[in-house]
Amino acid sequence: MAGPISRAQNGPPWRGQLYNILFETDTRSGRVFDVVLMVAILASVLVVMLDSVESIMLRHGLLLLAAEWVFTVLFTLEYAGRLASVESKRRYALSFFGIVDLLAIIPTYLSLLLPGTRFLVIIRVLRVLRVFRVLKLVRYLGEARTLARAMAASRYRIIVFLITVLTMVVILGSFMYLIEGPDAGFTSIPVSVYWAVVTLTTVGFGDITPNTPVGQLLAVIIMLLGYGMIAVPTGIVSVEMVYAARAAGRTGVVPPGTAGDMVCSSCRAAEHDPDARFCKTCGGTVIEIMLE
Amino acid sequence: MAGPISRAQNGPPWRGQLYNILFETDTRSGRVFDVVLMVAILASVLVVMLDSVESIMLRHGLLLLAAEWVFTVLFTLEYAGRLASVESKRRYALSFFGIVDLLAIIPTYLSLLLPGTRFLVIIRVLRVLRVFRVLKLVRYLGEARTLARAMAASRYRIIVFLITVLTMVVILGSFMYLIEGPDAGFTSIPVSVYWAVVTLTTVGFGDITPNTPVGQLLAVIIMLLGYGMIAVPTGIVSVEMVYAARAAGRTGVVPPGTAGDMVCSSCRAAEHDPDARFCKTCGGTVIEIMLE
Amino acid sequence: MAGPISRAQNGPPWRGQLYNILFETDTRSGRVFDVVLMVAILASVLVVMLDSVESIMLRHGLLLLAAEWVFTVLFTLEYAGRLASVESKRRYALSFFGIVDLLAIIPTYLSLLLPGTRFLVIIRVLRVLRVFRVLKLVRYLGEARTLARAMAASRYRIIVFLITVLTMVVILGSFMYLIEGPDAGFTSIPVSVYWAVVTLTTVGFGDITPNTPVGQLLAVIIMLLGYGMIAVPTGIVSVEMVYAARAAGRTGVVPPGTAGDMVCSSCRAAEHDPDARFCKTCGGTVIEIMLE
Amino acid sequence: MAGPISRAQNGPPWRGQLYNILFETDTRSGRVFDVVLMVAILASVLVVMLDSVESIMLRHGLLLLAAEWVFTVLFTLEYAGRLASVESKRRYALSFFGIVDLLAIIPTYLSLLLPGTRFLVIIRVLRVLRVFRVLKLVRYLGEARTLARAMAASRYRIIVFLITVLTMVVILGSFMYLIEGPDAGFTSIPVSVYWAVVTLTTVGFGDITPNTPVGQLLAVIIMLLGYGMIAVPTGIVSVEMVYAARAAGRTGVVPPGTAGDMVCSSCRAAEHDPDARFCKTCGGTVIEIMLE
Repeated sequence: MAGPISRAQNGPPWRGQLYNILFETDTRSGRVFDVVLMVAILASVLVVMLDSVESIMLRHGLLLLAAEWVFTVLFTLEYAGRLASVESKRRYALSFFGIVDLLAIIPTYLSLLLPGTRFLVIIRVLRVLRVFRVLKLVRYLGEARTLARAMAASRYRIIVFLITVLTMVVILGSFMYLIEGPDAGFTSIPVSVYWAVVTLTTVGFGDITPNTPVGQLLAVIIMLLGYGMIAVPTGIVSVEMVYAARAAGRTGVVPPGTAGDMVCSSCRAAEHDPDARFCKTCGGTVIEIMLE
Repeated sequence: MAGPISRAQNGPPWRGQLYNILFETDTRSGRVFDVVLMVAILASVLVVMLDSVESIMLRHGLLLLAAEWVFTVLFTLEYAGRLASVESKRRYALSFFGIVDLLAIIPTYLSLLLPGTRFLVIIRVLRVLRVFRVLKLVRYLGEARTLARAMAASRYRIIVFLITVLTMVVILGSFMYLIEGPDAGFTSIPVSVYWAVVTLTTVGFGDITPNTPVGQLLAVIIMLLGYGMIAVPTGIVSVEMVYAARAAGRTGVVPPGTAGDMVCSSCRAAEHDPDARFCKTCGGTVIEIMLE
Repeated sequence: MAGPISRAQNGPPWRGQLYNILFETDTRSGRVFDVVLMVAILASVLVVMLDSVESIMLRHGLLLLAAEWVFTVLFTLEYAGRLASVESKRRYALSFFGIVDLLAIIPTYLSLLLPGTRFLVIIRVLRVLRVFRVLKLVRYLGEARTLARAMAASRYRIIVFLITVLTMVVILGSFMYLIEGPDAGFTSIPVSVYWAVVTLTTVGFGDITPNTPVGQLLAVIIMLLGYGMIAVPTGIVSVEMVYAARAAGRTGVVPPGTAGDMVCSSCRAAEHDPDARFCKTCGGTVIEIMLE
Repeated sequence: MAGPISRAQNGPPWRGQLYNILFETDTRSGRVFDVVLMVAILASVLVVMLDSVESIMLRHGLLLLAAEWVFTVLFTLEYAGRLASVESKRRYALSFFGIVDLLAIIPTYLSLLLPGTRFLVIIRVLRVLRVFRVLKLVRYLGEARTLARAMAASRYRIIVFLITVLTMVVILGSFMYLIEGPDAGFTSIPVSVYWAVVTLTTVGFGDITPNTPVGQLLAVIIMLLGYGMIAVPTGIVSVEMVYAARAAGRTGVVPPGTAGDMVCSSCRAAEHDPDARFCKTCGGTVIEIMLE
C-alpha cells in the first residue's frame, strides 16, 4: 500500500534540511538528532514504568506528569516535523513507524479527556518500539536483516515444530489432569496444559507440581522431552544462520570498493582474481562489489 | 500390514469426487474442506478443554454438550465418507489416521453408555492429532520430513545421551537422598531422582530444594552439568540438520533462472548436467528451477 | 596398568565357552545373556530405589529383601564366572568394570555385618553403571565414541568457559549478598553464589528471590547473561561434533567393503575414483576402507 | 595508554630473575609460582566467602582473620615484587591486572581504618579475577582467544538480539501488569518486566505467577517465545565459532608429519607452499607441524 518515504521535492529549502535531520543518518546533524531521540525515547519509557510504581507515584507524581508532558510535546513537534518534510504525508502516516510515532503522543492527550484510563499505559509503553526507528538507520540494520532472513527462511520448520509442541502439551496436559487432579493444582485441562508448557519449556515456576509417583514419572518424561527438544529450534536456526551468513558475506558488513572489485568480505583484501571464491589470505568469502 | 490408501476404483462417480474432497489437497474443494476440518478439529478440542473448567461447565455445560454432539456427528459423517471413498476399507480403518479418526468419535457415543467415565477425556483430547491429518497434505510435509529425518539419523546418539542422563540422575539423586534426607523433601530415592531430573533439565520447580551446604554444592554441580550438557542434543541435532538440509536441497534462496535450468543454490552457477546434484564449482546443492 | 581383558588360553574348554557368553556379543548365547543381564541390572536398581520408599518398604520389605538377595547371588555367580574365564584375573579385577561388578555385590554381604548402614545404598545404586557394560558391547559404542571424542576435543574450551562462569557467579553472588542481605534469603556469600548458579543456569528454583528493585535489576542481568551464555557450550560442542562426524564418516557406521575400496560413508555407493572426496550420488564423504 | 609490560632492562640481576618467576610461565620456577599463586587466590576467596557465613564466623572468626592477613601480606609482597621487576612501574600499576592486584590487598588495610565497612567484601571478592592472571599465561589462552573472537565477531548481532528481547519484555511485562494486576504480584510495570525476563529466559522462579486464564495464555506465549528464541544466540555463536575454529586451525586431530611440514588438518594432504593457510584440495586449514 505505502511506498517508500521520500524527501519532499518542492517547497522551501528548510523542508529538505528538516528531512535530513529527522530521517537521514549520514549527516552530522542527523546523527546528533538520533542520539537525542534515543535518549528521549528511553527516558519517556522509564517515566511510564516508574509511573506504575505506587511509592514513586505518590512521592514524585507531579514530576513524572511534567516529564510526560515535556516528552509528549517534543514527540509532537517531531511528528509534525516528519509530516512536513516528507513528500507524501499519507504514506508516512500509514507506515509502521508513522503509526508508532502517532501512538507515542496520543495517549497523553487522551488522558485529558478520559482520566484514569488504565489501558492507555500499554499504548504509552509501545513507545519503546521507536527505539527501532533509530536503529533502523544505522549499522545494526545489516545484522538485523541477516537474523530476520534466517528466521524467515526457517518459518515453515518453526511452524511445524510449534504445532508439534502444542499438540504434545495438549495431550500431556490432559494426562496430568487425569493423573493428578484438582488436589495437586491441576484444576482443569487448560491449567494442566499451561503447566505442561511451563514444564516442557524448562521454565518451571513451581506454582503447580505433581505429587503422585505416576505424575512425577510423567513430569520426568516431559522435562526430558523439553530438555532434548530445545535442540530442534536451535538446529533449525543454526542451519539457516550458516546459510544466511554465507549469503551475506560473513561479516554482514559490505566491504568498501567500487563496482566490479573482488573484495574479501572478511579481511577486505582486494587483489583477487575475477573467478576467486575464497580469499587467498584468510579463507573468507570473496564477493563482487555491486551498485545497490 | 496396511498398504497405501488409494481412491476407490469402481462404483458410482461420487465416490471418486468424495475421495478428492476428503483426501486430496490439490483441488479447490479439497483445500476448502481442509480449512473447515482444521477449524472443526481445533474448536472440538477447545470444547473438551473448556468442559474441564468447573466454572464454565456449570454455566455453559449444555452449550458445550451440544457443541460436542455437533462435532461428533460431523466427524462421524466424515469417517463414513472416508470409509466409503477408499478402495480398501480395512486398510484405511487400520491405518494410523484411520484409528485417530475413529477415536475422535467413539468417546462421545461411549459416554451415553458409561456416563461420568472420566478417562474418556483423554481419548477425546487425542482428536488434536487430527491436526496432522490436515498438515500431512500440504507444504509442511516436506519440512516435517526433513526434521523427522534429522531426528531419525541421530537416534542412536540420542539414546546414548538419554541413557547417560538417566544413569547420572539415578546416581546423583541417590547422593542427594543421603545428603539431604527426608527433612528437606528428599523423602525417597525415586523422589530424589525426580528432583535431579528437575534440576539437570534446568526446569527447577522449587518444590524440593537443598538446605545443607553439601547438598547445595552438589546441586550447583548438577545445575552446571545440565547447563553444559544441553549442548549435546543441540550439537547432535544441528549436525544432522545440516546434513538433512544439504540432502534436501536448500530452498532458502531460490536462484533466478527459467524452468528446467539446473542452478546452484549457493553460487548460482548454471551450467550443470541434468543429473547433477551438487555444484561442480562450490559443492552447493544444485536445484532445478520449477514454475510455482 | 591393566591391559586388555582376554580369553583364558588354557584350561578346560568350558572356560572359553563361558568367556563367549559373558564377554562376547557376536554369538547367540552372548546376545541372550546381554538381554538377561540388562533386565537383571535394571530390576536390581529398581529394588534399591523402591527400598527407600517408606510406604513400600513397610508393606513389601521382605519381598524386596528376597529380590535383593536373588540378584546378589546371580551377580556373584556372574562375577565368579568372569573371574574364571579371563586370562588374567588381576587385570579383570582391577579394570573399571571389574570394580563396578564387585561393588554390585559387596554391599549386600556387608549389610549382614553392618546392619542399617545407610550409605551402602549409594554403592548399591552404582550398579546402574553396569548398564554401560552391556552397551559397551553393541552398536551404541560407535556413537558414544563420537560423542566422547567431541567432548574430549573441546575440553580446554569447556574448562575456560566453566572458570569464567564460576568467576562470574562468585562476583555476582557477592553483589547480591550486599544488595539483598539476609532478609531476602541471601544469608551468606556461599548461599548467594548458589542462588547465582540457580539463576545463571536458568534453573530458577525460587527458594530465594530478590525483593529490592536493585536486586531484581541485577537478577535480570544475570538471567539475560545465562540465557545468552548457554550459546557458548552449545557452539563449542556443535563445532566439535561437526568435525567428529566428518572424521568418523558421518553415519558413525563404517560401510562394508574390502581394504582399498572407496565407499561413500552416507549412501554406501562404492564405484568412486581413487581421488574422490565427495560422493557423486549423494555428496557424502567418500572414505577408503582400511583394515582395523 | 599503557603499553606492554616488559622486564626491567637495568638494575641488579635479581630483578630479571624475579620477573621470570612472577610473569613468565616457561621456566620451572615460574610454573611452580603459578601453582602456588592459584592455590593462594582460591584459598583467599574461600576465606572471604566463609567469613560471610554467620555460624562459621562466630566459631572460627579469629582463624579466618589470621588467614586473611597472611594472604594479604603474601599478595602485598607479590605486588611489591611485580612493581620492582617491571620496566615501567606506571604501566604495570595502571594495567588491568595491576589494578586487580592492588584491589586484592587494599580492602584488608582499609578495614583497619574503617572497621565494619560491609561493601569492602565485594572488593575482596574481586580477587577471584586474579585467577585469569594465572590462566593468561598458559595453554588456555588460545582457547579463550578463540571464544573471545567468536563473541566479538557476533557482537552486533548479539546487541540487536538483546534490544529485541528488552523491547519484548517491556511490552509483554506491561500487558501482564494490565491483565494480572497487583493481586497476583504484578505490582508495577518494572516488577512485571522483571517477571517477563524471568519467564522469557526460562528461569521461572515462581515468586510471581499468573492466576487468570488470559494471563496464563500470555505466559504460555512468552514461554514458547523464550524456548524458541534461545536458538538465536546459539545460532549466532555457533556460526561464529565455526568460522573462528576454521581461522584458528583446528587442533582436534593433529595430522602426522615431521616438524616443518605444512599439512592439511582436514584431508592430510602435505604438499603445500610454506605460506599456505588453506588446503588446495579441500579448503581445510593448513597447519605447520611443530615439536611439542
